Amino acid sequence: MNDRFLAVCRGDAPDATPIWFMRQAGRSLPEYRALRATHDILTLCRTPELAAEVTLQPVRRLGVDAAILFSDIVVPLEAMGVALKIVPGVGPIIESPIADESGIDSLAPLSPEDGVSYVLETIGILRKELDVPLIGFAGAPFTLATYLIEGGPSKNQARTKALMYGAPKVWHRLMHVLADSMLAYLRAQVSAGCQAIQLFDSWAGHLGPIEYGEFVLPAVKRIMDGLKASGVPRIVFGVTTGELLGLIAESGADVVGVDWRTPLDVARTRTGEAVILQGNLDPAVCLAPWETVRARAGDVLERGGGRNHIFNLGHGVLPDTDPATLKRLVDFVHDWRPDA
Amino acid sequence: MNDRFLAVCRGDAPDATPIWFMRQAGRSLPEYRALRATHDILTLCRTPELAAEVTLQPVRRLGVDAAILFSDIVVPLEAMGVALKIVPGVGPIIESPIADESGIDSLAPLSPEDGVSYVLETIGILRKELDVPLIGFAGAPFTLATYLIEGGPSKNQARTKALMYGAPKVWHRLMHVLADSMLAYLRAQVSAGCQAIQLFDSWAGHLGPIEYGEFVLPAVKRIMDGLKASGVPRIVFGVTTGELLGLIAESGADVVGVDWRTPLDVARTRTGEAVILQGNLDPAVCLAPWETVRARAGDVLERGGGRNHIFNLGHGVLPDTDPATLKRLVDFVHDWRPDA
Repeated sequence: MNDRFLAVCRGDAPDATPIWFMRQAGRSLPEYRALRATHDILTLCRTPELAAEVTLQPVRRLGVDAAILFSDIVVPLEAMGVALKIVPGVGPIIESPIADESGIDSLAPLSPEDGVSYVLETIGILRKELDVPLIGFAGAPFTLATYLIEGGPSKNQARTKALMYGAPKVWHRLMHVLADSMLAYLRAQVSAGCQAIQLFDSWAGHLGPIEYGEFVLPAVKRIMDGLKASGVPRIVFGVTTGELLGLIAESGADVVGVDWRTPLDVARTRTGEAVILQGNLDPAVCLAPWETVRARAGDVLERGGGRNHIFNLGHGVLPDTDPATLKRLVDFVHDWRPDA
Repeated sequence: MNDRFLAVCRGDAPDATPIWFMRQAGRSLPEYRALRATHDILTLCRTPELAAEVTLQPVRRLGVDAAILFSDIVVPLEAMGVALKIVPGVGPIIESPIADESGIDSLAPLSPEDGVSYVLETIGILRKELDVPLIGFAGAPFTLATYLIEGGPSKNQARTKALMYGAPKVWHRLMHVLADSMLAYLRAQVSAGCQAIQLFDSWAGHLGPIEYGEFVLPAVKRIMDGLKASGVPRIVFGVTTGELLGLIAESGADVVGVDWRTPLDVARTRTGEAVILQGNLDPAVCLAPWETVRARAGDVLERGGGRNHIFNLGHGVLPDTDPATLKRLVDFVHDWRPDA
């Protein structure tokens, strides 16, 4: 069992810096594309043997130090009664966006064993196959709310913010409902075998620190608190969250994901020393010649300081990335040592 | 003549905090929509009487302390020989995106008097009509390059970054060509009567500080240096540039625009005290009830400290904004005074 990732999460010194990639399972791998040629994304998510296979593909090919469950953040929403589809090249599209209190009433609290049993079954298969830790995940309440309110991906989250500012009580109720369901979802993933969890708050970086603290952080904290007793490391990640890193650390997260815009040494001044940082090579760097990848990854490692650091990209792997570059990057990170 | 905006730019203490809005001329105003019903955007930009009228509309209605020329950042690109269109709801679409050196060869250096004489004519009309300062503008080389390379708006600027990392010599040549043409464009705008200029580097915030410093800042600095002798205030603005604010200040800009993610007091610790800050109310706040707008605008003013501060939004006015809210906001900012 490769324990590098969990060792860093525990605060121990690992034999090398652990590395995995957000979206490592997916579009950049030919073996994934082959499966996608005959199955849509939600079918892959709902079929345990296939979801397990997609989760395993990058572990086999790249030698990463953790697997992340193949799924989508909207999967539990569907199980809460939200009619939706995933449109390739666009993202999730919600049939009836939430506009007011009645939209929240229509959300059924998630019962993971009934609604997403296939996810739990996938986890069971994976734990038998994997020799690296398995990371489970969920979308964070704010990010899920943006999809539910905007009806799909949005440039500026204007409707979401209008509801947040205009009807704060309704907003907090929505955050509460989503937090409780995602907490149940993540607890079920841990019970089924996940050894760490990551909360993806992809769009939280559209908020400034005052709004994040008032309208989002309480729901994130509720999830972190609710998972504390489980003992698994809890990661929180979002994009353009540079100004929010201190608040995200206050949520109780053990690991804070950092996007590529904020150098890790700067990030550490905001989160404090105790928190483990995850990140943060610009995914677009992996499209560059190897010498550039090596130099930029080396800079990330130096700024990470060789301790309390899990190497990752600053966001998901881009579809055009050559898997050979990712493999080389894994080896480079494993071979790297901090200057004595 | 309302001199409030220029007074702050000179470092003087104005009688009240000046305010204008990015995208104040445009989609949120019914009188603009009426014009758009019969003219497309590029026709409005190319017709001096109409472009002047659109520029004047928000000054009349809102009482802002500066006008910004109505145009589009792609207007000079067209005059450089780039075939393009603006697709409503999408943005600029470039017919033949630049992929290599030959694409740069095909760019004709901008000769403003020949290529965009209608812009200079618009400025002449406006100076006779306006009793507030007129701000000219151009897109910054990086942001223009993203459109030229991606062919339109892009989520992750992957092609742009691939060229930047993969062919740095080609990249720097492109930056140089664009910087020289935008410098000529802005100088012509100042000669025609603009009393300040703003460089819009909307997408520069997709880069971390190392990349910005190496691949973008030299071109911005070239433009700032080239305009210094003109004596007009030079503003640089971009979105998600929190980590870049110190570098942007190093460009020589007199005024640094700040997006809403970074509180102004935090921004000041990065730019230094000498720089004037412009911003930074979240545009989505203007969709909220007035009490929220008032409270959040008050917070922006407090953090701005009542000195070296031009009030603005942290990005452009959203189309659904009620102009009455903007008017009320202008009055609120003018009435506000720092605590004694």
